[in-house]
Amino acid sequence: MTAACELCQDTGGEELYRDHQLRVVLVDDAQYPGFCRVIWHAHVKEMTDLLPASRSAMMQMVMKVESALRETLNPDKINLASLGNMTPHLQWHVIPRFRDDAHFPAPVWAAAQRQPDAGALAARASHLAALRAALARATSED
Amino acid sequence: MTAACELCQDTGGEELYRDHQLRVVLVDDAQYPGFCRVIWHAHVKEMTDLLPASRSAMMQMVMKVESALRETLNPDKINLASLGNMTPHLQWHVIPRFRDDAHFPAPVWAAAQRQPDAGALAARASHLAALRAALARATSED
Repeated sequence: MTAACELCQDTGGEELYRDHQLRVVLVDDAQYPGFCRVIWHAHVKEMTDLLPASRSAMMQMVMKVESALRETLNPDKINLASLGNMTPHLQWHVIPRFRDDAHFPAPVWAAAQRQPDAGALAARASHLAALRAALARATSED
Repeated sequence: MTAACELCQDTGGEELYRDHQLRVVLVDDAQYPGFCRVIWHAHVKEMTDLLPASRSAMMQMVMKVESALRETLNPDKINLASLGNMTPHLQWHVIPRFRDDAHFPAPVWAAAQRQPDAGALAARASHLAALRAALARATSED
Protein backbone atom coordinates (compact mmCIF):
# COMPACT_ATOMS: atom_id res chain seq x y z
CA MET A 1 0.00 0.00 0.00
CA THR A 2 1.37 3.37 -0.97
CA ALA A 3 0.02 6.74 0.09
CA ALA A 4 0.34 8.21 -3.40
CA CYS A 5 -1.66 5.48 -5.16
CA GLU A 6 -5.34 6.17 -5.72
CA LEU A 7 -6.17 2.46 -5.94
CA CYS A 8 -4.52 1.86 -2.56
CA GLN A 9 -6.50 4.75 -1.07
CA ASP A 10 -9.86 4.34 -2.78
CA THR A 11 -12.12 1.51 -3.95
CA GLY A 12 -12.13 2.93 -7.48
CA GLY A 13 -15.87 2.72 -8.16
CA GLU A 14 -19.03 0.91 -7.09
CA GLU A 15 -17.85 -2.39 -5.69
CA LEU A 16 -19.56 -5.35 -7.37
CA TYR A 17 -17.42 -8.08 -5.86
CA ARG A 18 -14.61 -8.43 -3.35
CA ASP A 19 -12.57 -11.33 -2.03
CA HIS A 20 -9.32 -11.52 -0.10
CA GLN A 21 -7.13 -10.64 -3.08
CA LEU A 22 -9.12 -8.65 -5.63
CA ARG A 23 -12.21 -6.57 -6.25
CA VAL A 24 -14.46 -5.75 -9.21
CA VAL A 25 -15.77 -2.22 -9.51
CA LEU A 26 -18.18 -0.51 -11.85
CA VAL A 27 -16.53 2.64 -13.17
CA ASP A 28 -18.53 5.86 -13.10
CA ASP A 29 -18.16 6.82 -16.78
CA ALA A 30 -21.25 8.38 -18.38
CA GLN A 31 -20.06 7.44 -21.88
CA TYR A 32 -19.39 3.81 -20.98
CA PRO A 33 -22.12 2.26 -18.81
CA GLY A 34 -20.88 -1.16 -17.73
CA PHE A 35 -17.16 -0.23 -17.82
CA CYS A 36 -15.68 -2.43 -15.07
CA ARG A 37 -12.27 -2.77 -13.50
CA VAL A 38 -10.79 -5.80 -11.79
CA ILE A 39 -8.30 -4.49 -9.24
CA TRP A 40 -5.73 -6.48 -7.30
CA HIS A 41 -5.81 -5.25 -3.70
CA ALA A 42 -2.04 -5.29 -3.16
CA HIS A 43 0.08 -2.62 -4.82
CA VAL A 44 1.61 -4.81 -7.51
CA LYS A 45 2.81 -3.34 -10.80
CA GLU A 46 2.80 -6.08 -13.43
CA MET A 47 0.96 -9.35 -14.00
CA THR A 48 4.29 -11.20 -13.91
CA ASP A 49 4.93 -9.80 -10.41
CA LEU A 50 2.13 -12.15 -9.28
CA LEU A 51 2.63 -15.86 -8.72
CA PRO A 52 1.08 -17.98 -11.51
CA ALA A 53 -1.89 -19.02 -9.35
CA SER A 54 -2.67 -15.36 -8.63
CA ARG A 55 -2.36 -14.40 -12.31
CA SER A 56 -4.83 -17.15 -13.06
CA ALA A 57 -7.26 -15.95 -10.34
CA MET A 58 -7.05 -12.42 -11.76
CA MET A 59 -7.74 -13.52 -15.34
CA GLN A 60 -10.55 -15.85 -14.31
CA MET A 61 -12.26 -12.88 -12.69
CA VAL A 62 -11.68 -10.78 -15.83
CA MET A 63 -13.35 -13.59 -17.80
CA LYS A 64 -16.33 -13.63 -15.42
CA VAL A 65 -16.76 -9.90 -15.89
CA GLU A 66 -16.48 -10.25 -19.67
CA SER A 67 -19.11 -13.01 -19.64
CA ALA A 68 -21.47 -10.99 -17.44
CA LEU A 69 -21.08 -7.97 -19.73
CA ARG A 70 -21.75 -10.02 -22.86
CA GLU A 71 -24.76 -11.67 -21.27
CA THR A 72 -26.39 -8.45 -20.10
CA LEU A 73 -25.23 -5.66 -22.46
CA ASN A 74 -24.56 -7.67 -25.64
CA PRO A 75 -21.74 -5.33 -26.75
CA ASP A 76 -20.29 -5.37 -30.27
CA LYS A 77 -16.85 -5.99 -28.76
CA ILE A 78 -15.15 -6.39 -25.41
CA ASN A 79 -11.92 -4.47 -24.81
CA LEU A 80 -9.52 -5.76 -22.15
CA ALA A 81 -6.46 -3.85 -20.99
CA SER A 82 -3.91 -3.73 -18.22
CA LEU A 83 -2.03 -0.45 -18.63
CA GLY A 84 -1.17 1.30 -15.36
CA ASN A 85 1.22 3.89 -16.78
CA MET A 86 -0.22 6.58 -14.53
CA THR A 87 -1.37 4.33 -11.68
CA PRO A 88 1.06 1.39 -11.58
CA HIS A 89 -1.29 -0.73 -9.47
CA LEU A 90 -2.45 -3.89 -11.22
CA GLN A 91 -5.93 -3.40 -12.66
CA TRP A 92 -7.79 -4.72 -15.68
CA HIS A 93 -10.14 -2.53 -17.68
CA VAL A 94 -13.08 -4.55 -19.03
CA ILE A 95 -14.97 -2.30 -21.42
CA PRO A 96 -18.14 -3.09 -23.38
CA ARG A 97 -17.83 -1.43 -26.78
CA PHE A 98 -20.59 -0.51 -29.23
CA ARG A 99 -20.40 0.65 -32.84
CA ASP A 100 -22.07 3.91 -31.89
CA ASP A 101 -20.03 4.65 -28.77
CA ALA A 102 -17.85 7.74 -28.43
CA HIS A 103 -14.63 6.21 -29.83
CA PHE A 104 -15.53 3.09 -31.83
CA PRO A 105 -13.65 1.51 -33.59
CA ALA A 106 -10.75 3.30 -31.89
CA PRO A 107 -9.72 2.42 -28.34
CA VAL A 108 -11.40 4.52 -25.63
CA TRP A 109 -8.08 6.31 -25.02
CA ALA A 110 -7.97 7.74 -28.55
CA ALA A 111 -9.68 10.94 -29.67
CA ALA A 112 -13.47 10.79 -29.48
CA GLN A 113 -15.17 10.27 -32.83
CA ARG A 114 -18.73 11.29 -31.96
CA GLN A 115 -21.11 12.30 -29.21
CA PRO A 116 -22.95 9.12 -28.23
CA ASP A 117 -26.73 9.13 -28.45
CA ALA A 118 -28.30 9.80 -25.03
CA GLY A 119 -31.03 7.23 -25.64
CA ALA A 120 -28.53 4.50 -26.45
CA LEU A 121 -26.55 5.32 -23.31
CA ALA A 122 -29.70 5.26 -21.18
CA ALA A 123 -30.68 1.89 -22.66
CA ARG A 124 -27.27 0.48 -21.75
CA ALA A 125 -27.43 1.95 -18.25
CA SER A 126 -30.82 0.26 -17.78
CA HIS A 127 -29.01 -3.11 -17.94
CA LEU A 128 -26.68 -2.36 -15.02
CA ALA A 129 -28.97 -4.04 -12.48
CA ALA A 130 -28.85 -7.20 -14.62
CA LEU A 131 -25.06 -6.87 -14.84
CA ARG A 132 -24.74 -6.69 -11.05
CA ALA A 133 -26.97 -9.77 -10.71
CA ALA A 134 -25.10 -11.73 -13.39
CA LEU A 135 -21.74 -11.04 -11.77
CA ALA A 136 -23.13 -11.94 -8.33
CA ARG A 137 -24.29 -15.28 -9.76
CA ALA A 138 -20.98 -15.92 -11.55
CA THR A 139 -18.92 -15.22 -8.45
CA SER A 140 -21.07 -17.35 -6.13
CA GLU A 141 -20.63 -20.47 -8.25
CA ASP A 142 -17.15 -21.35 -6.98
CA MET B 1 -10.69 -18.17 -41.43
CA THR B 2 -12.25 -15.22 -43.17
CA ALA B 3 -11.04 -13.61 -46.37
CA ALA B 4 -11.53 -10.07 -45.05
CA CYS B 5 -9.45 -10.55 -41.88
CA GLU B 6 -5.83 -9.46 -42.08
CA LEU B 7 -4.81 -11.82 -39.26
CA CYS B 8 -6.35 -14.75 -41.12
CA GLN B 9 -4.48 -13.74 -44.28
CA ASP B 10 -1.15 -12.62 -42.89
CA THR B 11 1.24 -13.60 -40.08
CA GLY B 12 1.09 -10.06 -38.66
CA GLY B 13 4.81 -9.51 -38.13
CA GLU B 14 8.10 -11.35 -37.63
CA GLU B 15 7.13 -14.70 -36.19
CA LEU B 16 8.96 -15.42 -32.93
CA TYR B 17 7.00 -18.51 -31.94
CA ARG B 18 4.26 -20.72 -33.35
CA ASP B 19 2.43 -23.77 -32.10
CA HIS B 20 -0.77 -25.49 -33.24
CA GLN B 21 -3.08 -22.84 -31.76
CA LEU B 22 -1.26 -19.51 -31.51
CA ARG B 23 1.73 -17.47 -32.66
CA VAL B 24 3.84 -14.63 -31.25
CA VAL B 25 4.95 -11.92 -33.65
CA LEU B 26 7.22 -8.92 -33.32
CA VAL B 27 5.36 -5.90 -34.66
CA ASP B 28 7.18 -3.62 -37.09
CA ASP B 29 6.66 -0.31 -35.24
CA ALA B 30 9.63 2.09 -35.34
CA GLN B 31 8.42 3.91 -32.22
CA TYR B 32 7.96 0.72 -30.20
CA PRO B 33 10.82 -1.75 -30.64
CA GLY B 34 9.80 -4.95 -28.87
CA PHE B 35 6.03 -4.47 -29.40
CA CYS B 36 4.74 -8.04 -29.65
CA ARG B 37 1.39 -9.60 -30.42
CA VAL B 38 0.11 -12.99 -29.35
CA ILE B 39 -2.39 -14.07 -32.00
CA TRP B 40 -4.81 -16.99 -31.84
CA HIS B 41 -4.71 -18.76 -35.22
CA ALA B 42 -8.46 -19.38 -35.46
CA HIS B 43 -10.77 -16.45 -36.21
CA VAL B 44 -12.23 -16.08 -32.73
CA LYS B 45 -13.57 -12.75 -31.51
CA GLU B 46 -13.48 -12.73 -27.71
CA MET B 47 -11.48 -14.46 -24.98
CA THR B 48 -14.70 -15.99 -23.63
CA ASP B 49 -15.32 -17.59 -27.03
CA LEU B 50 -12.39 -19.87 -26.18
CA LEU B 51 -12.66 -22.86 -23.87
CA PRO B 52 -11.07 -22.22 -20.45
CA ALA B 53 -7.99 -24.33 -21.25
CA SER B 54 -7.40 -22.31 -24.42
CA ARG B 55 -7.84 -19.00 -22.58
CA SER B 56 -5.24 -20.20 -20.13
CA ALA B 57 -2.82 -21.20 -22.92
CA MET B 58 -3.25 -17.77 -24.49
CA MET B 59 -2.60 -15.90 -21.24
CA GLN B 60 0.36 -18.09 -20.32
CA MET B 61 1.95 -17.14 -23.64
CA VAL B 62 1.18 -13.44 -22.98
CA MET B 63 2.94 -13.86 -19.63
CA LYS B 64 5.99 -15.44 -21.30
CA VAL B 65 6.22 -12.52 -23.70
CA GLU B 66 5.84 -10.03 -20.84
CA SER B 67 8.63 -11.81 -18.92
CA ALA B 68 10.92 -11.89 -21.95
CA LEU B 69 10.33 -8.17 -22.56
CA ARG B 70 11.02 -7.27 -18.93
CA GLU B 71 14.17 -9.41 -18.89
CA THR B 72 15.64 -7.96 -22.07
CA LEU B 73 14.28 -4.39 -22.46
CA ASN B 74 13.64 -3.50 -18.80
CA PRO B 75 10.65 -1.24 -19.66
CA ASP B 76 9.14 1.21 -17.17
CA LYS B 77 5.76 -0.51 -17.67
CA ILE B 78 4.18 -3.31 -19.66
CA ASN B 79 0.87 -2.60 -21.38
CA LEU B 80 -1.40 -5.54 -22.23
CA ALA B 81 -4.52 -5.22 -24.34
CA SER B 82 -7.02 -7.29 -26.28
CA LEU B 83 -9.09 -4.84 -28.33
CA GLY B 84 -9.96 -6.05 -31.84
CA ASN B 85 -12.52 -3.38 -32.67
CA MET B 86 -11.17 -3.07 -36.20
CA THR B 87 -9.84 -6.62 -36.57
CA PRO B 88 -12.11 -8.86 -34.44
CA HIS B 89 -9.59 -11.71 -34.41
CA LEU B 90 -8.30 -12.55 -30.94
CA GLN B 91 -4.88 -10.97 -30.40
CA TRP B 92 -3.02 -9.60 -27.39
CA HIS B 93 -0.85 -6.52 -27.66
CA VAL B 94 2.17 -6.77 -25.34
CA ILE B 95 3.87 -3.40 -25.36
CA PRO B 96 7.04 -2.34 -23.53
CA ARG B 97 6.57 1.25 -22.38
CA PHE B 98 9.20 3.81 -21.42
CA ARG B 99 8.87 7.20 -19.77
CA ASP B 100 10.39 8.85 -22.84
CA ASP B 101 8.37 6.99 -25.47
CA ALA B 102 6.03 8.74 -27.88
CA HIS B 103 2.88 8.52 -25.73
CA PHE B 104 3.88 7.89 -22.10
CA PRO B 105 2.05 7.98 -19.73
CA ALA B 106 -0.91 7.83 -22.12
CA PRO B 107 -1.79 4.58 -23.91
CA VAL B 108 -0.15 4.15 -27.33
CA TRP B 109 -3.55 4.77 -28.97
CA ALA B 110 -3.83 8.31 -27.57
CA ALA B 111 -2.32 11.40 -29.15
CA ALA B 112 1.48 11.36 -29.26
CA GLN B 113 3.12 13.52 -26.63
CA ARG B 114 6.63 13.77 -28.03
CA GLN B 115 9.02 12.61 -30.73
CA PRO B 116 11.05 9.83 -29.13
CA ASP B 117 14.82 10.19 -29.08
CA ALA B 118 16.43 8.27 -31.95
CA GLY B 119 19.28 7.10 -29.74
CA ALA B 120 16.92 5.67 -27.14
CA LEU B 121 14.97 3.84 -29.85
CA ALA B 122 18.19 2.44 -31.34
CA ALA B 123 19.31 1.26 -27.90
CA ARG B 124 15.99 -0.56 -27.44
CA ALA B 125 16.16 -2.08 -30.91
CA SER B 126 19.65 -3.39 -30.08
CA HIS B 127 18.02 -5.70 -27.50
CA LEU B 128 15.72 -7.43 -29.98
CA ALA B 129 18.17 -10.29 -30.57
CA ALA B 130 18.16 -10.91 -26.82
CA LEU B 131 14.35 -10.75 -26.82
CA ARG B 132 14.12 -13.38 -29.56
CA ALA B 133 16.52 -15.61 -27.60
CA ALA B 134 14.68 -15.12 -24.29
CA LEU B 135 11.34 -16.03 -25.83
CA ALA B 136 12.85 -19.05 -27.57
CA ARG B 137 14.17 -20.23 -24.20
CA ALA B 138 10.86 -19.57 -22.41
CA THR B 139 8.82 -21.44 -25.01
CA SER B 140 11.14 -24.47 -25.12
CA GLU B 141 10.83 -25.10 -21.38
CA ASP B 142 7.43 -26.81 -21.51
